[in-house]
Amino acid sequence: MTQRKTNLDLVNECDNFPYPDIPFAQGLLSGSYFKFKLEGCIAVLGYVLPEVAEKLPASPEWERNNASLEFTFKPANTPSDPEEAVAHRTAVLARFLQSAREAKTFRVLNGWRNELYPVYGPGRELLFSMERSASALFGIVTYGVHMTAYTQTAEGMKLWTPRRAPTKQTYPNMMDNTVAGGLSTGEKPFECLVRESMEEASLPEDVVRNAQACGTMTYFYVRDKRAGGEVGLCQPECQYVYNLELPEGVVPRPGDNEAVDFQLLTVKEVQSAMAEGRFKPNCALLLVEFFVRHGIIRAEDEPDYLEIVSRLHRRLEFPMG
Amino acid sequence: MTQRKTNLDLVNECDNFPYPDIPFAQGLLSGSYFKFKLEGCIAVLGYVLPEVAEKLPASPEWERNNASLEFTFKPANTPSDPEEAVAHRTAVLARFLQSAREAKTFRVLNGWRNELYPVYGPGRELLFSMERSASALFGIVTYGVHMTAYTQTAEGMKLWTPRRAPTKQTYPNMMDNTVAGGLSTGEKPFECLVRESMEEASLPEDVVRNAQACGTMTYFYVRDKRAGGEVGLCQPECQYVYNLELPEGVVPRPGDNEAVDFQLLTVKEVQSAMAEGRFKPNCALLLVEFFVRHGIIRAEDEPDYLEIVSRLHRRLEFPMG
Repeated sequence: MTQRKTNLDLVNECDNFPYPDIPFAQGLLSGSYFKFKLEGCIAVLGYVLPEVAEKLPASPEWERNNASLEFTFKPANTPSDPEEAVAHRTAVLARFLQSAREAKTFRVLNGWRNELYPVYGPGRELLFSMERSASALFGIVTYGVHMTAYTQTAEGMKLWTPRRAPTKQTYPNMMDNTVAGGLSTGEKPFECLVRESMEEASLPEDVVRNAQACGTMTYFYVRDKRAGGEVGLCQPECQYVYNLELPEGVVPRPGDNEAVDFQLLTVKEVQSAMAEGRFKPNCALLLVEFFVRHGIIRAEDEPDYLEIVSRLHRRLEFPMG
Repeated sequence: MTQRKTNLDLVNECDNFPYPDIPFAQGLLSGSYFKFKLEGCIAVLGYVLPEVAEKLPASPEWERNNASLEFTFKPANTPSDPEEAVAHRTAVLARFLQSAREAKTFRVLNGWRNELYPVYGPGRELLFSMERSASALFGIVTYGVHMTAYTQTAEGMKLWTPRRAPTKQTYPNMMDNTVAGGLSTGEKPFECLVRESMEEASLPEDVVRNAQACGTMTYFYVRDKRAGGEVGLCQPECQYVYNLELPEGVVPRPGDNEAVDFQLLTVKEVQSAMAEGRFKPNCALLLVEFFVRHGIIRAEDEPDYLEIVSRLHRRLEFPMG
């Protein structure tokens, strides 16, 4: 029998990268990761595992500095026009990642997605885009949407909760948020929500238009075995959070191969499943945030309330879009 | 004519202490403030302005180390029993502050409140309590409640917005949140909300019981002239956030001398007053948070969305309760 997880345990499992303002974490950090940089840009864009940095072939496009622990992308012949520069960097990186994929250099690239994720600079300008499955190799910030759909019933609020398919590459069979998806380069959060709601939950656009934006959630996740691929990869994430109240009778149904079904669960049932560790870690975190925002988790009952709320909105140390 | 403030301007005015993970801020910080500590406790409890640390009389109870920039409270003869130790430290500090008040050493003590605020250690244990008006001298975290009451009308949501009395010591005549107050040692947030709702807005307990807890807001404020007292004092704050929907016809009315009246304003009217700088800085921040949570400020329209949301929930670098 495993111990039931507290809400703080659930936060710790998802937001599990050390905080840079804690002195011991600074040491841990500087000893364990390379800083990912782009030549000519002052900002650190992500953190790279030493085993990843060491596996990359020596080439003029990549500079590894073991003294400063910097790992710098230096694409040759970058055009001076900003838009052309973005396209050039993106193309050089794509060729490089494609060859790493073919050489099977990194396990995480087995989950190749053919989707481009944005990487931003300190002025929020797009620097380049990167194949989605490679984002954790470089530890860049990724962006997504998460929506909790719920229905008010005679028994109180119930939440629409999908179970992930056993065939999913990551976190098979675990419980999930009603709708979740990643933001590709150029995609707006609400657009992404509308697309994913139809794909994953068969919810039509006219229903999803009633969804309410509620802010963002940010956390810094270090991947473990359940995520697949190399262990220890960095995944700082920013999720745009939405709520959607569905009238009784409107039922989400799997629209693709992501979920096997949607269950309509009471708050107590959802909280039990969270405590049993049955939710995908970041989905449990999203539900903690939903419960805080709806007065279901309250300061009077939750001893870790202040720490939990602050950590749901971690300030990431990289530039963001 | 002054420039209209953006939402990020409003955040910057309230959360205006540098972030410790930004290298230049580290330099600024270590050059400008003493770390407030308690003998025997490893944690930094707050930041003290050098002009404050220098004004304190040389005494065995206070140790100022100009090399390490530490300013340490060392009450003699502290009992070993934890509860007695708390009472002893609180009493020694109270005597000290009372004499500083009589000597008029610090202007901020002219606003003496006769309320005790808690100071916590790294295990969330109460270390001692401190007269409210002295909290900014030591830069300790203070706790409060803020509630936005609103009414759904034919013209949409309207917010109940008080104007602070011209006689208030701090931020006279500025606009405020419906109900706000500070948490004394031992007081629970919801208790405090019920008490303040009656005192400030004449809202009875049976109405306030419908208020919904929505999380917390944290920010690190450096006091300017409008706050009264010494300029540059540190005020890291944690506010427990509540919403209350009032039915049409239930009207908040000034119950003490805090507010002159309550206006029922549309979202647009509130946003205009915010942009004109008419709200007390932390109340503007609370409204930004309310608008984010209600989908009124959205990523699609607000270029600073990600920074704003993250900064509404700043992780403070001190132990909290």
